[in-house]
Amino acid sequence: MSQTYQRIVLASRPSGWVTADNFRLESLPIPTLEDGQILVRNHYLSLDPYMRGRMNDAKSYAQPQAIDATMVGGTVGEVVQSCNERFAVGDKVRGMLGWCEYGVSDGATLFKLDTTHIPLSAYLGPVGMPGMTAWYGYHKILEPKPGQTIVVSAASGAVGSVVGQLARFQGVRAIGLAGGSEKCRYVTEELGFDACVDYRQAHNPAELAALLHEVAPHGVDGHFENVGGDVLNGVMSLLNPFARVAICGLISDYNMQAGGVARSAIQNPHLFLVARFRMEGFIVSDHLELWPQGLKELAGYVAGRRLKYRESVAQGLEAAPEAFIGMLKGRNFGKQLVKLI
Amino acid sequence: MSQTYQRIVLASRPSGWVTADNFRLESLPIPTLEDGQILVRNHYLSLDPYMRGRMNDAKSYAQPQAIDATMVGGTVGEVVQSCNERFAVGDKVRGMLGWCEYGVSDGATLFKLDTTHIPLSAYLGPVGMPGMTAWYGYHKILEPKPGQTIVVSAASGAVGSVVGQLARFQGVRAIGLAGGSEKCRYVTEELGFDACVDYRQAHNPAELAALLHEVAPHGVDGHFENVGGDVLNGVMSLLNPFARVAICGLISDYNMQAGGVARSAIQNPHLFLVARFRMEGFIVSDHLELWPQGLKELAGYVAGRRLKYRESVAQGLEAAPEAFIGMLKGRNFGKQLVKLI
Repeated sequence: MSQTYQRIVLASRPSGWVTADNFRLESLPIPTLEDGQILVRNHYLSLDPYMRGRMNDAKSYAQPQAIDATMVGGTVGEVVQSCNERFAVGDKVRGMLGWCEYGVSDGATLFKLDTTHIPLSAYLGPVGMPGMTAWYGYHKILEPKPGQTIVVSAASGAVGSVVGQLARFQGVRAIGLAGGSEKCRYVTEELGFDACVDYRQAHNPAELAALLHEVAPHGVDGHFENVGGDVLNGVMSLLNPFARVAICGLISDYNMQAGGVARSAIQNPHLFLVARFRMEGFIVSDHLELWPQGLKELAGYVAGRRLKYRESVAQGLEAAPEAFIGMLKGRNFGKQLVKLI
Repeated sequence: MSQTYQRIVLASRPSGWVTADNFRLESLPIPTLEDGQILVRNHYLSLDPYMRGRMNDAKSYAQPQAIDATMVGGTVGEVVQSCNERFAVGDKVRGMLGWCEYGVSDGATLFKLDTTHIPLSAYLGPVGMPGMTAWYGYHKILEPKPGQTIVVSAASGAVGSVVGQLARFQGVRAIGLAGGSEKCRYVTEELGFDACVDYRQAHNPAELAALLHEVAPHGVDGHFENVGGDVLNGVMSLLNPFARVAICGLISDYNMQAGGVARSAIQNPHLFLVARFRMEGFIVSDHLELWPQGLKELAGYVAGRRLKYRESVAQGLEAAPEAFIGMLKGRNFGKQLVKLI
């Protein structure tokens, strides 16, 4: 085993768009374990939009990512040394070890994974945090009834793709929003959404609403928002009475200057009264008590090949910054991963 | 009995601020009753902010007020003729007979009132639609726990005053927002709110948040919004995790030109993620099944003189337009009524 490993740290906070300069690749000696610790060799890193928010030094639901510390993030890998009786060498595990080839854990936030029927990388996607995010927002906020219509933005992404498929499994009409005809085709033909609107064809909220109205003539009963801005304003104008809006992410705002005013206001709050709808922001890590239930359901769908998913895989730790920047610009197609081994 | 009566109709739709020209006073013959009908002499008219919304010809939760028709609105009065076995001459009743001295009803939306312990006019205030609006928003949306802090805008008004008092009865900390020192003093000294901030001292959302922070150092767990605009944006920045916001009215926008874009955007939707709060618009008439329960509770508080309220009473039907315009500008102090008899 190599005596050193590589990691990527946050070198500086971005001002607007993230650039490669914001990251730094470092080599470190592999630490010697203390009692109770586990050494994990990471096989895959998860790259997720929430990481952009943590790069700012601003109040949010989580502490900002520290400068010069390993970039945070979910990981899956294999135990290579263990001083903890709960974990054995060879165990496959999910953790939050960050952008690094090796990581040390005390086991408290490390979960053993069964890869008999489910590929390891899926535990960072449909059977991991993105899948659970979709599951929570869909079941606990949108709560649609069969026959109702929901809209999902970033529908080809790791979260949105699961939301729409959960809807279809229940007889709920699912309409996706995605960028470009290739993603839209994937959303309808592969994932089975009822329709998908290419939001790049709309130049403002009214145009988006007009396109959406063609495929949702009876209005929208639930909306799962990953994007914000014009997308959110456009969908809001189509909400039916007592509709629910789950605010999962606002990626259109993530590239704002730290501390700046958000670019994308909600233009017409009066719609809250017109349609008496409910809008709720959520973070799936607030609801850890539901993860066993949700992940069990999602694992069943993936093992049974009923739930489809797609991965964008970058090769090698040094590729992580560019892959992350590309994801923020919507260049990925499906769950963005970095494969280390 | 006089053979004619007066009413006020909508003569034209306002463009921006309502003016007296938008109304017209008319005399009509008192109709002859058909079988099942009741003739009511109105004692009080209720003037409410929602009426402004109906004066626009715009999509909303209710049909627009028709031109040349009697202005809509809640009323209390006395049955003076009855061809309906459920109502007798002399019965006190609440209805939606509008801005008129006499009204005819088929009884379906007429409710008999017991004025033994509760003044007739209170059935248009704390034991009527405004009280029920407060009750629903407080109990069904804010749902605060003892020790939590809620904020109520338009706190001296017919709805806001009840919200804060319901909170105090439960050991919830209530902070009002009102315009001017006289109203603020009333809110704390008479109504018993823990604190009241004069929003006129703030020139933008950040200044309002700073004033509010002084009296809510631990943040805000629930917000009952009657105003919108800078008030909503200011309070939003102080919301604690999992806070609830009940959107009851957005009076700061009601004087927009019909069909125009709302003046007051929600500036920072990112706060939905920072604090994972829930915002919900509601209309109390959607929840008629809860009125008996809510009104019973409110009637008990009023009969026991525990719930305080205040009325602004304009005299005579012809005074209704100016009283309504004054209310939209915040000149009333407590529930705005028009006394007809």
